[in-house]
Amino acid sequence: MSVIELLSPFDRVRALRFDATGLSLLDQRLLPQTSSWLPMPDADAVVDAIRALIVRGAPAIGIAAAYGLVLAARATATLTIAEQQLAFRAAAQRLRAARPTAVNLMWAVDRMLARCGDNPQPEWVLQQAQAIDAEDLAANYQMAISGAAYIEAGSGVLTHCNTGSLATAGLGTALGVIRAAYAQGKLRQVYASETRPWLQGARLTVWELLEDNIPACLIGDGAAAYLMSLQRVQWVIVGADRICANGDTANKIGTLSLAVAAQHFGARVMVVAPTSTVDFATADGSAIHIEERDPRELTEYAGIRVAAPGVQAWNPVFDVTPASLIDVIVTERGVVEKPNTERMQALLA
Amino acid sequence: MSVIELLSPFDRVRALRFDATGLSLLDQRLLPQTSSWLPMPDADAVVDAIRALIVRGAPAIGIAAAYGLVLAARATATLTIAEQQLAFRAAAQRLRAARPTAVNLMWAVDRMLARCGDNPQPEWVLQQAQAIDAEDLAANYQMAISGAAYIEAGSGVLTHCNTGSLATAGLGTALGVIRAAYAQGKLRQVYASETRPWLQGARLTVWELLEDNIPACLIGDGAAAYLMSLQRVQWVIVGADRICANGDTANKIGTLSLAVAAQHFGARVMVVAPTSTVDFATADGSAIHIEERDPRELTEYAGIRVAAPGVQAWNPVFDVTPASLIDVIVTERGVVEKPNTERMQALLA
Repeated sequence: MSVIELLSPFDRVRALRFDATGLSLLDQRLLPQTSSWLPMPDADAVVDAIRALIVRGAPAIGIAAAYGLVLAARATATLTIAEQQLAFRAAAQRLRAARPTAVNLMWAVDRMLARCGDNPQPEWVLQQAQAIDAEDLAANYQMAISGAAYIEAGSGVLTHCNTGSLATAGLGTALGVIRAAYAQGKLRQVYASETRPWLQGARLTVWELLEDNIPACLIGDGAAAYLMSLQRVQWVIVGADRICANGDTANKIGTLSLAVAAQHFGARVMVVAPTSTVDFATADGSAIHIEERDPRELTEYAGIRVAAPGVQAWNPVFDVTPASLIDVIVTERGVVEKPNTERMQALLA
Repeated sequence: MSVIELLSPFDRVRALRFDATGLSLLDQRLLPQTSSWLPMPDADAVVDAIRALIVRGAPAIGIAAAYGLVLAARATATLTIAEQQLAFRAAAQRLRAARPTAVNLMWAVDRMLARCGDNPQPEWVLQQAQAIDAEDLAANYQMAISGAAYIEAGSGVLTHCNTGSLATAGLGTALGVIRAAYAQGKLRQVYASETRPWLQGARLTVWELLEDNIPACLIGDGAAAYLMSLQRVQWVIVGADRICANGDTANKIGTLSLAVAAQHFGARVMVVAPTSTVDFATADGSAIHIEERDPRELTEYAGIRVAAPGVQAWNPVFDVTPASLIDVIVTERGVVEKPNTERMQALLA
């Protein structure tokens, strides 16, 4: 059975679609209650959709921006080439600025600019956007197979946040590995942590797993250590927002807690991310600036106040898991076991 | 300065009050939005209030039940002594069954029955209820001073769930130690974890600390390990639902995760609980049955569905922290460092 035959039954969720009617985005703000597809009439609608978190997940944002540039190219197809170039570059700048901290967004827009900036003909721009889309999907299939090879039959796996089809071109990174291991019949149970404060695990991850008929069990973030103490988790499988030259990994807040508990209770930790996530210019995790968000994400829920007025709250978005707590980093260019600076360098070869 | 002078400015919150108008309970379901005191007309109102979680926290429930028996005694004061005994014992049975798993509730009702069952005269019953109330408060003052002695000046402390005045006769157990250390000027920062799924930390702990003018910082449960990795927490201070003969401790889900992270990052762990919580008949944590609650506590929030329909959820109420991860257990009868079966026995001397 080919990899595509094996995995495609478990890869049916998509964050965006581009067809004869143009670009539509699944409104992730409304999941899991409602699956609502929003048509994007032009590039500025895509800018707004990225800002409003209708689409989220670094690879998915980059792909949405690339298709947004197709809309920009189509809108100016009847103008002179100089006018087309001007309008295309202006749209690219607006898309690039929609989420200033999203590395993949900048990477995708810059690649589109490099390849289409002088020649923004709609068909050519579409080919380039489809290439970014297809390459992300192919990378995820590659990582899924590479990562799943580490997982023994009968394993329990725990994932954190959402790293699935909703965050990528499809299949997902960490969730792609889980889909592949499930397709291979290796998984006894998939656990998803709810991932406070945004609840990406509860709202998105378990939704997309159930859409693909993969049974999932939701747990509170604080219950993960107890679950591991019962030996029900053999692998913690997570994505990454940035991987340093030595393998230290910034990921959604709560990842470090899972990695520490995994080490304590004998579970293993797998980080799954494309090489575009690896930042060889940053030596180790101590150099990463961790963004802190509005305390109201902790003190309120859906606009309802939960905590006492006047309380402080500390709300970091990410934490840094040291390479020493990571068993394997899976990329589309290869796998790094027991990561350190020397072994990470092999990815560049 | 006496202990009372030192601590009373930081001990103003109460879960219940018994005065000339009778018994009233603070409706903890409405905190922190509203401070609403509900008068309790009779013992059955107290049964309903315990069932409805208007009052919660094992010691506070036991005290509420004791005062509920005062109401029962007053209601039958004009009857014959045989009728009084019958009505008193019936009320005791109804109170005892209001929360079947609450050890302190049974202990308090059984003590009231033993002392007042044959002579349920209102004044005598009131004296016995006040004794339970006063003894709990005194134990908390004792534990607060004993525990605070371990805390170095300039420390950061992290607590979990609610173990404060709202859960006891006053001051609290773990939160009593934090109040005392704050009163002694030793604390750089108090952190409270939100404590999913019930959010007792967010809803109750930070509220009562702010009521007593103790600044508190709320964090997500998953952020605790990252906070410890920054060396901002020197002590994790928690209560207990049951302590085994060897020191293994069952406490609110999430405690084990904090204890594992504390060991990894060099913070210490203190458990604070009265000796009535120590169960010498249970050798170690493997014998503790852990209650699991309705998955909807994770899949819904305030009646709003959060997670996809059909998802499983695993919702244990407690976890078990092994004695090997606990630095000190503080009781009103003494302190046990590096707990094991032998050292725990010293509490019985």
